[in-house]
Amino acid sequence: MNLTSDLASRDRALRERAARVIPGGMWGHMNAARLPPEYPQYFARGEGARLWDADGREYIDFICGWGPVILGYRDPEVEAAARVQAALGDSLNGPSERLVELAELMAGTIAHCDWSLFAKNGTDATTICVTVARAGTGRRKILLARRAYHGAAPWCTPQPAGTTAEDRAHQIFYEYNDVESLEQAAAEAGDDLAAVVASAFRHDIGRDHELPSAAFARAARALADRAGAALIVDDVRAGFRLHPGGSWELVGVRPDLAAWSKAIANGHALAAVTGNDRFRDAATRIFTTGSFWCQAVPMAAAIATITKLKAIDGVARMRRAGQRLRDGLQAQADAHGVRIRQSGPPQMPLILFEDDPEVAKGRLFCVEALKRGVYLHPVHTMFLSCAHGDAEIDRALEATDAALAAVGAKFG
Amino acid sequence: MNLTSDLASRDRALRERAARVIPGGMWGHMNAARLPPEYPQYFARGEGARLWDADGREYIDFICGWGPVILGYRDPEVEAAARVQAALGDSLNGPSERLVELAELMAGTIAHCDWSLFAKNGTDATTICVTVARAGTGRRKILLARRAYHGAAPWCTPQPAGTTAEDRAHQIFYEYNDVESLEQAAAEAGDDLAAVVASAFRHDIGRDHELPSAAFARAARALADRAGAALIVDDVRAGFRLHPGGSWELVGVRPDLAAWSKAIANGHALAAVTGNDRFRDAATRIFTTGSFWCQAVPMAAAIATITKLKAIDGVARMRRAGQRLRDGLQAQADAHGVRIRQSGPPQMPLILFEDDPEVAKGRLFCVEALKRGVYLHPVHTMFLSCAHGDAEIDRALEATDAALAAVGAKFG
Repeated sequence: MNLTSDLASRDRALRERAARVIPGGMWGHMNAARLPPEYPQYFARGEGARLWDADGREYIDFICGWGPVILGYRDPEVEAAARVQAALGDSLNGPSERLVELAELMAGTIAHCDWSLFAKNGTDATTICVTVARAGTGRRKILLARRAYHGAAPWCTPQPAGTTAEDRAHQIFYEYNDVESLEQAAAEAGDDLAAVVASAFRHDIGRDHELPSAAFARAARALADRAGAALIVDDVRAGFRLHPGGSWELVGVRPDLAAWSKAIANGHALAAVTGNDRFRDAATRIFTTGSFWCQAVPMAAAIATITKLKAIDGVARMRRAGQRLRDGLQAQADAHGVRIRQSGPPQMPLILFEDDPEVAKGRLFCVEALKRGVYLHPVHTMFLSCAHGDAEIDRALEATDAALAAVGAKFG
Repeated sequence: MNLTSDLASRDRALRERAARVIPGGMWGHMNAARLPPEYPQYFARGEGARLWDADGREYIDFICGWGPVILGYRDPEVEAAARVQAALGDSLNGPSERLVELAELMAGTIAHCDWSLFAKNGTDATTICVTVARAGTGRRKILLARRAYHGAAPWCTPQPAGTTAEDRAHQIFYEYNDVESLEQAAAEAGDDLAAVVASAFRHDIGRDHELPSAAFARAARALADRAGAALIVDDVRAGFRLHPGGSWELVGVRPDLAAWSKAIANGHALAAVTGNDRFRDAATRIFTTGSFWCQAVPMAAAIATITKLKAIDGVARMRRAGQRLRDGLQAQADAHGVRIRQSGPPQMPLILFEDDPEVAKGRLFCVEALKRGVYLHPVHTMFLSCAHGDAEIDRALEATDAALAAVGAKFG
C-alpha cells in the first residue's frame, strides 16, 4: 500500500498549497518533515484517544496533541465548561471570575503553590520563572541541564539561527541527575546564582528518559537554599501526568517556582507560573503580560480539566494504561527477538531500539504501526490520556505486534 | 453614589480572594490598579459594543478587550465558525486545513505578505520578526523607537525587574517620525544592522499619538534597503483597524516583516508574522514553536474575522464611528471650555487634556464617564469595533458631555 500516492491525496494537496504561503511548508515541532514521509501533516478531528487525519484515516493516538490532550480529545465536560463560558465572554477588558477560581484551584492542588500567574505558551512560563528568580534574588546566573528543552524563545531555542550570543548570557550547564556536575555549575555561578532550572524528568529528544533521582532533586533543593537561589521545575511537558501536586512530589522535593502549560486545559491555550511566598514580591515587581492571558474560556477549561483529573485519579489511570502498553510491547519485542528500551514514566513513554543510531528501526516501527492505525513517535516523548482504556491499548498492541515483527524481519 | 462600597461588592470580594493567590492581586496591563479605583477589575460578559462587569454594570466599551475585539464581543459569525471547528478538534497532532486557508487569506489580504507563521502572543510575533531579520541578514543590531511598546518579554518589557543588560544588547533607539534620528541610529549600527522596527503608528502610553509621516516611512524603507536590513512593522496593536492590507499601506510603504495579533481573530488567541520572499529562507531556518500555535479554533475564528472585516469594510465603519465620537467630543469640550487633545486614528483614539501632567483631568473624565456607563481609558490607546454604530456613539456622547462638564466644573 503506497499511502502517499493512493490515500493521502488531501494531505499532499494541502502541503503543496502550504509550501507557497508558509516558510518550508510548516514550522516548529509539528513539522511532519521531522517524521517519516508516511506521516500526515494535516488533521481533521479528534475524539477521546482517536485522531483522524485530513484524509480520514483514523489513529489511536499516543501524541495527544504533543501533550495538551490529557482527558482525551474533546472531553465532554471540558468542552461543556468552555461553551458555557464562551456564551458569556472570553477576551474582555480584564479577567473573569474564572481567574480567581483557577488560581485558588491551583493553590489547593499544587504542593508548593501559594500563587499563580497565567500566560499562553510553555515558553512564556519558563521565561517568567527565570525573570521572577532574577528579580527576587537580584542575581543573573541560571543553571540548566545540558540538552534540556525549555521552549523556543531566543534564550532557549535549540536552533540558534537568528539569535545572538547575549541571548544565552548567564547560562551555566550541568548534567541532569548528576549531583557533582550541578555543584560544579553552582560553583561557577558563585554569588551570582539566581536559579537552578530542572525539567520534571529528563525527556531529551532521542535519548532514554530518566526520572529525577531523589538524591539529585534533594541536592538541587539544598543547593538553591544554601545559595539563596530559586529552584525552578519546568513541568510544562509532564505537568498533571505524573502527580497532580507537581511532578517532583514523586521525589518529595518542592520547587520555589514551576512552569506549566500543555495539559493544564486539555488543549485550550493556557500556561501558568506557580510560586511560593518567598517569590511573591518578585512576581509583583516584574512586568509581563499578553493580550489573551486573561481569556476566560481557557481558564474555564482548565478548571474543568484539573477538577476531573483529580476526581477520576487521572494519573493512576494513565499510568495503568501506559504500563499495559509497556508490558505488552516488551512481550512482543521478546517474542520477535527485537531489543527495545522503554523509558520515561509509563504515561509518557519513549521507545528506542538497541543498535539504532540512525533511528532506522524506530522509524520503521512507527511507520508500520501508523499503517495499522496507531500514531507513535520514534524519538519524542509520547503521551497517554485518560481516554486510553484497555480497549485502546489492546488495539494499539495488535498494531505494534505486526510493527515489531516487521522490525525483526528487516533488522534481524 | 459610592460605587466601591455600594455596588461593587462582587468585584471587591474577588479582589480580596485574588490578593491571596495572585501576586499583587493581578499582573500586567489588565491590572485595574493602573486605573482609578472606581474601575472594575472583573468582567462577566460582552455582547457587541457592550460589556458587563462582575457586578452586572453595563458599559459601552472603548477598550475592546485591549484591542482584540474588532467586530464586537461574541460576533455571531466568528463564534459560529469557532463552534463548527471546536466540534471537530482544536489542538491536534498538527495543523488542520484552517492553517492553509488562513495563510492563503493573509497572503491575499496583506500587501507585503508572501508567507505567514502563526503564534499566540503579540510578543511572540515581534520576537520572531527580529529573529528572522537576524537570521536573514546575519547581523545583530535592531533600531527601535524610544518608548515604543513591542511586548513584555525580557528584551522589550517596559519594566526591567528580573531582566539583564544582555537581554537588551544590540538595541539602538531613534525618535519615531524623526528621520535624522533614524539615520543616526543606523550609522551607529554600522554594518551590523539587522532591522529597523517601527510601530504602525506612534502609540506610546500617555503621549499624543502620531501617524507615521510618509517621509519617515519612506526613509525607513530606503534605509533598510540601502543597508540590506529588514524593515519590520509592529502591527500588533493597530493591525486590521487602519487598513486591511497592513497599516503602512496608508503611507504607501511595505515592510519586509510584520507582527500581528490582537484583532486577528476577534478575541481568540492568535498571533502572526507575515513576511516577503526575501525573508522566506530565514524564516525556514529559525526554530520557534508553541504547544498551541496550530490550534484550529482560533484559525477558524481568524478566517471568519478577516473575511467579515473585508466584506463589511470594517475599517471605514470604525473610522466613521470614531470620527463621530471625536467630533462630538470636540464640540462638547469647546462648549464646556475644556481643552482636550485628540490623537491617533479616529478608530484608535487617545484623549488627553491640556495642562494635565498628573492626568487628574483625564482620570476624572474617565471616572465620570464610567459612572454613566462608558468605559474609556485615560492614557492608553482606545479601540472601536464594528459594533460601535451611531446609537452606541450617541449614547457614549451623552456620558462624555456630563463627564466633560465635571472636568470643566472642577478644573475651570
